[in-house]
Amino acid sequence: MPLSDRVLMGPGPCNLYPEVVAAMVRPMLGHLDPEFLGVLDETCERLRTVFRTTNRLTLPLSGTGSAGMEAAFVNLVAPGDPVVVGVNGVFGQRMVEVAQRCGAEVTKVEVPWGEPIDPAALLGAHPAPKIIAVVHAETSTGVRNDIEALGQGKGDALLVVDAVTSLGGMPFEADAWGVDLAYSATQKCLGVPPGLAPITVNERARAAMVPRPRSWYLDLSLIGDYVDSSGGRTYHHTAPVPMVFALHAGLGALLDEGLEQSWARHQHCGQILHEGLDKLGFHLFARDGHRLAQLTTAWVSERHLPSGVDEAQMREILLSRYGIEIGGGLGPVVGKVWRIGCMGHTARVRNVTLLLGALAEVRA
Amino acid sequence: MPLSDRVLMGPGPCNLYPEVVAAMVRPMLGHLDPEFLGVLDETCERLRTVFRTTNRLTLPLSGTGSAGMEAAFVNLVAPGDPVVVGVNGVFGQRMVEVAQRCGAEVTKVEVPWGEPIDPAALLGAHPAPKIIAVVHAETSTGVRNDIEALGQGKGDALLVVDAVTSLGGMPFEADAWGVDLAYSATQKCLGVPPGLAPITVNERARAAMVPRPRSWYLDLSLIGDYVDSSGGRTYHHTAPVPMVFALHAGLGALLDEGLEQSWARHQHCGQILHEGLDKLGFHLFARDGHRLAQLTTAWVSERHLPSGVDEAQMREILLSRYGIEIGGGLGPVVGKVWRIGCMGHTARVRNVTLLLGALAEVRA
Repeated sequence: MPLSDRVLMGPGPCNLYPEVVAAMVRPMLGHLDPEFLGVLDETCERLRTVFRTTNRLTLPLSGTGSAGMEAAFVNLVAPGDPVVVGVNGVFGQRMVEVAQRCGAEVTKVEVPWGEPIDPAALLGAHPAPKIIAVVHAETSTGVRNDIEALGQGKGDALLVVDAVTSLGGMPFEADAWGVDLAYSATQKCLGVPPGLAPITVNERARAAMVPRPRSWYLDLSLIGDYVDSSGGRTYHHTAPVPMVFALHAGLGALLDEGLEQSWARHQHCGQILHEGLDKLGFHLFARDGHRLAQLTTAWVSERHLPSGVDEAQMREILLSRYGIEIGGGLGPVVGKVWRIGCMGHTARVRNVTLLLGALAEVRA
Repeated sequence: MPLSDRVLMGPGPCNLYPEVVAAMVRPMLGHLDPEFLGVLDETCERLRTVFRTTNRLTLPLSGTGSAGMEAAFVNLVAPGDPVVVGVNGVFGQRMVEVAQRCGAEVTKVEVPWGEPIDPAALLGAHPAPKIIAVVHAETSTGVRNDIEALGQGKGDALLVVDAVTSLGGMPFEADAWGVDLAYSATQKCLGVPPGLAPITVNERARAAMVPRPRSWYLDLSLIGDYVDSSGGRTYHHTAPVPMVFALHAGLGALLDEGLEQSWARHQHCGQILHEGLDKLGFHLFARDGHRLAQLTTAWVSERHLPSGVDEAQMREILLSRYGIEIGGGLGPVVGKVWRIGCMGHTARVRNVTLLLGALAEVRA
């Protein structure tokens, strides 16, 4: 059955760069084929550029963004290790859950949804944490948490950052900010389908990795021996070849445009979306000054909706009538907030214009 | 840079069914889009047909086959649980490693590479194991291990089977054989790229799952709540949408042909390959009577090679001159054995004819 062609303005996945679609069907290669390894090497090099790092251990993990989160904790946490986690949304809370399953003694620093986390609170939460972990761009709330101050104040702790919704869409500086480990996902501002988790680990974090993590599949030492040519290309698991092609192409499109230009494009689209929503009478959910451009959250109430239509039905109308997907709220704001993504190839002025026009039209 | 179009006769990945290539570029959808959920439901139903099961918990995990292995043990093993593992190759040994990292007390039943594992030895290895685990089709040796007798004799133990290289390419009967949990991979006899791990779990194994496994990413209860509509589609992680499209299409192609017909095609190709290699003077590695058709292992020595060319160089000649990939040996038989896959869309008589012709031509 034919599938509909959507304008994907939810919290991810986004629409794909045309170059990515083409790359998905490049000829299939074996995971040890020299031609594939060449593409893989180039992909890792492009990831370094986008993460703004020289970290040797920089690669795409064979799982979605959540696998990146799990890899971070499973490789760094030994049972009983103290870990400080900032929580102001679903993904901070997920970090707590994942770290605890790895055996961490977690200290939570929690603030209300919609608010950013004060770096000082994170830095002061525990006298000697092994890890301080925070989400850079909270996909569940549209809030940006500050990273740079954490890198400056972390002391002996390792700074672990979730860059799932930030990478490629806003400034992220792994090395300059003192980030020891960061992971991301492909289906947000990189314009690639979901399926891989880019990750980067500096030498300080590598030295702190547990020798035999509880997960074999996400063991970064073993994976590094395959991905990094200096590891002798030791077989670990079969790389998901077409997804690597897709990521390679998406990063290529992004870097052909320019990393700063991509940041600026996401920023510009978010800004006109924020202004347009304001004109339509919406109130934005995330605290002013810490709002993401690539993922906008707005309160939704009856006055934004046609009479007798609730927010879920309105999203259904957008989907069926215009082919536009936007996202609903999660957790405490389910049914009260929309999440509107403008990421990757979706981050075009025309898509913002379309959505604002559709919202006005349906309500009229 | 353009990539070469290979004939993939290594131990996987195989060549893709044309329907799979087309499906990779179906319009991108969100992971909660009703149209995507329809494709996902149909994919799970097709997996049940191919696994020969009615198990409700049957789904594609968002990782490669090795993630399927890890999911099996991480969901079933509590620290200290006794687990019996059959080892006659790399993947049996990997099961030991993964189970141990989950905290299992592993009893190994080891036999030499190339030999099958006697079911009686597995059944008698421990008085009360929680799990008996074995690889059905050892990709590292080309050996088939018997499953049915294990299901008959397992008693209170759970039978966990690695069906990575068997599923779709030879008889596999999850329900009739009494398999409690089986996992597979997409890039072998299903003719799909690497990236997903189909898994099926019966009610007996579900009841034995640990309540909060060490892995959040591979927590089958949480994943089931998203994949199974009765779980309310609770968001867990973002599904790798195009890979699900690819698996859906690969299973569609396979079932349009017919499951038994696919088994027979793999069997036929393997048989003419075995006969052809014999005529060329090769000796097969795997024990007669337990040889896989879809993955053939053969001893390689100087008399099979042009003078001055070693086996790795010969594989390189096949790759560069003919675009044919075959695999080298692993572990104790590295440099001594070839592994020749004939799986998925690669399992065509013409590919066997081509490889045999190329081997004869290069040696001449």
